[in-house]
Amino acid sequence: MSGTYWSPGLKNVRIRDDFWSPRLKTNSYISLDQQYDHLQANGSLDNFRRVVGEAGGDFEGPPFIDANVYKWIEAASYALATDEMTTLRGKVDTVISLIEQAQADDGYLFTYFMLGDNSGRWSNFTMMHELYCAGHLIEAAVAHHRALDDDRLLRVARTLADHIDERFGPDKQDTIPGHEEIELALVRLYRVTDDDRYLDLAGYFIDRRGRDPSPLAAELPELEQMVERGSFSKEQKESGWSVVGYQDTLRDDSGEYDGLWAQDHAPIRDQRRVEGHAVRAGNLYAAVAAYLHEVDDDELFAAVERLWRNMVTRRMYVTGGVGSSPDTESFTEDYDLPNDTAFAETCASASAIFWSQNMFELTGEGRYIDTLERILYNSLLSGVSLDGSRYCYNNPLQTDEEYHRNEWFYVACCPPNLSRVLASLGEYIYARSERELLCNLYVSSTVDTTLAGTDVTVEQRTEYPWDGDVAVDLSLDDSATFTLGFRIPDWTENWAVTINGESVSVAPTDGYVTVDREWDDGDHIEVSLAMEPDVVVAHPDVESDKAHAALRRGPLVYCVEDLDNPHPARHLILSRPDSLSARYTESMLDGMTVIEGEASVQDAQEWQDALYRSLDSVAESSTEFLAIPYYARNNRGPTSMRTWLRLA
Amino acid sequence: MSGTYWSPGLKNVRIRDDFWSPRLKTNSYISLDQQYDHLQANGSLDNFRRVVGEAGGDFEGPPFIDANVYKWIEAASYALATDEMTTLRGKVDTVISLIEQAQADDGYLFTYFMLGDNSGRWSNFTMMHELYCAGHLIEAAVAHHRALDDDRLLRVARTLADHIDERFGPDKQDTIPGHEEIELALVRLYRVTDDDRYLDLAGYFIDRRGRDPSPLAAELPELEQMVERGSFSKEQKESGWSVVGYQDTLRDDSGEYDGLWAQDHAPIRDQRRVEGHAVRAGNLYAAVAAYLHEVDDDELFAAVERLWRNMVTRRMYVTGGVGSSPDTESFTEDYDLPNDTAFAETCASASAIFWSQNMFELTGEGRYIDTLERILYNSLLSGVSLDGSRYCYNNPLQTDEEYHRNEWFYVACCPPNLSRVLASLGEYIYARSERELLCNLYVSSTVDTTLAGTDVTVEQRTEYPWDGDVAVDLSLDDSATFTLGFRIPDWTENWAVTINGESVSVAPTDGYVTVDREWDDGDHIEVSLAMEPDVVVAHPDVESDKAHAALRRGPLVYCVEDLDNPHPARHLILSRPDSLSARYTESMLDGMTVIEGEASVQDAQEWQDALYRSLDSVAESSTEFLAIPYYARNNRGPTSMRTWLRLA
Repeated sequence: MSGTYWSPGLKNVRIRDDFWSPRLKTNSYISLDQQYDHLQANGSLDNFRRVVGEAGGDFEGPPFIDANVYKWIEAASYALATDEMTTLRGKVDTVISLIEQAQADDGYLFTYFMLGDNSGRWSNFTMMHELYCAGHLIEAAVAHHRALDDDRLLRVARTLADHIDERFGPDKQDTIPGHEEIELALVRLYRVTDDDRYLDLAGYFIDRRGRDPSPLAAELPELEQMVERGSFSKEQKESGWSVVGYQDTLRDDSGEYDGLWAQDHAPIRDQRRVEGHAVRAGNLYAAVAAYLHEVDDDELFAAVERLWRNMVTRRMYVTGGVGSSPDTESFTEDYDLPNDTAFAETCASASAIFWSQNMFELTGEGRYIDTLERILYNSLLSGVSLDGSRYCYNNPLQTDEEYHRNEWFYVACCPPNLSRVLASLGEYIYARSERELLCNLYVSSTVDTTLAGTDVTVEQRTEYPWDGDVAVDLSLDDSATFTLGFRIPDWTENWAVTINGESVSVAPTDGYVTVDREWDDGDHIEVSLAMEPDVVVAHPDVESDKAHAALRRGPLVYCVEDLDNPHPARHLILSRPDSLSARYTESMLDGMTVIEGEASVQDAQEWQDALYRSLDSVAESSTEFLAIPYYARNNRGPTSMRTWLRLA
Repeated sequence: MSGTYWSPGLKNVRIRDDFWSPRLKTNSYISLDQQYDHLQANGSLDNFRRVVGEAGGDFEGPPFIDANVYKWIEAASYALATDEMTTLRGKVDTVISLIEQAQADDGYLFTYFMLGDNSGRWSNFTMMHELYCAGHLIEAAVAHHRALDDDRLLRVARTLADHIDERFGPDKQDTIPGHEEIELALVRLYRVTDDDRYLDLAGYFIDRRGRDPSPLAAELPELEQMVERGSFSKEQKESGWSVVGYQDTLRDDSGEYDGLWAQDHAPIRDQRRVEGHAVRAGNLYAAVAAYLHEVDDDELFAAVERLWRNMVTRRMYVTGGVGSSPDTESFTEDYDLPNDTAFAETCASASAIFWSQNMFELTGEGRYIDTLERILYNSLLSGVSLDGSRYCYNNPLQTDEEYHRNEWFYVACCPPNLSRVLASLGEYIYARSERELLCNLYVSSTVDTTLAGTDVTVEQRTEYPWDGDVAVDLSLDDSATFTLGFRIPDWTENWAVTINGESVSVAPTDGYVTVDREWDDGDHIEVSLAMEPDVVVAHPDVESDKAHAALRRGPLVYCVEDLDNPHPARHLILSRPDSLSARYTESMLDGMTVIEGEASVQDAQEWQDALYRSLDSVAESSTEFLAIPYYARNNRGPTSMRTWLRLA
């Protein structure tokens, strides 16, 4: 197993899409601008200024606050790759200068300790996020370097990575980060530097996890039932660090930190189910998949494939959100997917996108992109308001009037994380190998790439996600033989592909219709994906969704907000699934396709003071209802929302 | 408003019932015997021995542990009223001697402070349960006195009550108990002593509650939205007592104790919804209703009726259980009735029974007994195993295999509380006024009483709750004119009453068919209540029960345990409500009527690795299922259970 696909590169993809272009513009001009103001206001940038003596006062924010600055640089760099925004570019340059100056001579960089108790450095991996922040710095540097051909931040990142490489390893300080992130960053750093040390260090952190023997390991018969302690528990005992500051629920019955939360309960290659904090898990397994792109390891691949499958078939909301527990932001049990308390953190959606993309790049299998697309269009996109200025940290499938978006958070991981996914959309639309180009996402765009030695430009035009028709045109200097592939998403069973008007009659392989032939300049392909409202139900073991159905159309999951309807969404009974119809409307929420249909309701008035009644005494009446895409929820003031509707 | 009905007295009612007699015998001979052993083993009795110098060591248990001894005496006294059990009587006498000796010269009695820091007496009403324990001592003494014509414990109780009366009041120590109980006890003490001081003190504690102004009161427009602090918050500030030991959820946002939990958020007469800890609430309002039996107060009656109605129409499980929150054992919001985390504490069922009975005694309205009956046969009775040796503290409507009954608890309030309700069943079957006798519960039994100056014996024979036919025979020396009334429960719409074979054609008034006439010796009445399986649904605002139905038959709610069925209860779909049938079987669980029917299931195998599927691709197949009465749940080893079944 080694890497088969990669992105043609952000700078080679130009997006001109009715759905996405306005969103990317909002992301660049509104979200990133306002995020910078928040970083100014909440002390994130001042912490760096304090380190270099340009500002006074104490460290502000949670210890891992530096990461938000780095994620913002990463997002801004992606945005700058295809749009020369001088104001934004100026801000990025200023912040990078600050970071350059703040870095210690030995390469260390973490303002919390630099402004506080220096002796705390590299000692508390349970609580501290030094390696996590280092990872985000490295990712930002790689993005900045690739987008702008500028090495300034990359030099900072390498110096820090070298510092870390000198310090950590089997014969050095032998431990792992409490919040994964550096693993993926090191693989990405390796890709731009070709320096094996970074790949090896990533491999060390990946394989080191779960290796500290648990006191419970011997007693428990099955690995998947383990709730172990591990590195962090050992560290606590040895150092006297406490887990105060984390929720009590992270302690096991003995009061010790529970290693499961940070995927430290067993070596990854032995893990059976995706466990613990969903962002940590996603970051880790995304790193493993990226690492496997460079290094063959069948056993590790089997593990990460098994874990991904566990996530998608047992622990993922219909919106693509992951992490059911609001207390610990973590995975819970198979099929435990409560809708009202669903955490489904925006950052967890980002991590699951990275993981899915990296699995795809390893395998070329469309199922990974099916999932990526579901997350992207639903649970991730729901994390930011349509105007780009307010965010959701969590993305429940059922909310009441009290629920609302926020402009910022004390722990502000989600806004810049979401922005970096959106700004890098161009990385996900196409994938290539030496002589193959796959259309993964349907977004009106153009890609310039080289296939089998020939320069090729591929242009797609589509009204996706409102319509499943996609037109693709090829431009190439000379005829050439290579493969084009078009993903047939799992949400449709009716599709067609034509080339220059002639039907292609191959069955999809691994989720793609692929055509290997000699292509000419001007060749025209049409992909048609039937897109109808679909009523979906959940596995019978998902008790939260029992007797309920969700509405999907194409990649979008729908939800019902009370303010669009005469009856509260919680009272609707989906009695006529055959009545559903889709209608595009310009006037609602920046333009969207809504789903309308007939439903039944019980008259709450008629119930009066009864709490329980005989079934045969209950009458239902007919009503109409309107559903909007889930991503557009909570954009029009307080209202209740339901994604799962009662089925008749 | 003043009292209209009262019990004919436990000693005048003899129960000989196929359903209840074996249960009462188990309660007397197994439960009370084993409870005594637990009180011996867990230090409850040793604490008294320590006070009198008969045992060494420190105080054991939670501070309010004395109450369990008192509740046990109360239960045993009820049992001894109609069954001369010399061994049990001997134990009761021994324990009473111990209590007599333990009481301080000034009347004080609370072993926690007597064995510890005496200076803590009467100072921490938020946390300590001195008045609560005093209340249970008084209730035990009243029960013991009435059952056995023995004044020993009553003397102890009066001395303690006098001590409390001297100490507490508007011009004395001006406060209220943190856990209500003494209020009801003082009314009952008044009834056996005719000493007005006890009634006045009860009235003081009742009306004092919620009178400390809340810092939030002025800011909040609506009384029902208040989450106030009150007496306890003030106490904390003045005394430095902390709420450590109680759950964090009892603190409001400022970290102060939330008065709502102990119904201290507003004066009772202004309260609109039943709030806070369900046992505290039930005890308080039961006391208010009992107090109103003695004192006219229309405003207070309106409040307690409004609160009872709020409980029954918005906050009660179909089993009669109350208190949804497992964290705080408390009421939450209207229609918030989750099934898996339902707390529905056994003690809360007991309190709700007392409250309902006292509301009935005030009004003569059958709706209170309808509710009492529902609680008694379902959520309360479910609190003890069929063999009388294991208990449930909480009574959820949905459990999985991990859930199990316990032999005892560190906080062991429920077992003796449940036993005192069962042992006093004879108090609830009949109610009388000067010239009226009402049959409230249908239990084969005989009552001797006096109506309109004539000695009357009424005997009823029935197979209730398996069958709704009741035969009633009168014995009296001379013909006499008085009223007999028979409750027509809310669970049936088809009923008939005949007197000496002739149909009575009056409509029920306040839930009773009443007949006022000259009765003769040998008159024979038959009451026939149609008892069929009924499929009930919950109010559309109860989201936990949406698209689900519960099965009832007569007073019994049913549930489905996996071990009786080929498919897990959580997979059953009630597709043929018309298929239900009832069948009595001797062989199951001491004999019971089960409900059988046809249902559908989705094949979980067929789903394989899918988590979400299109509705039209999902097939269902037919299966049979068997439901048992809810009270009999969890008597046959680990199994999953559901009360609400998915409706097709």
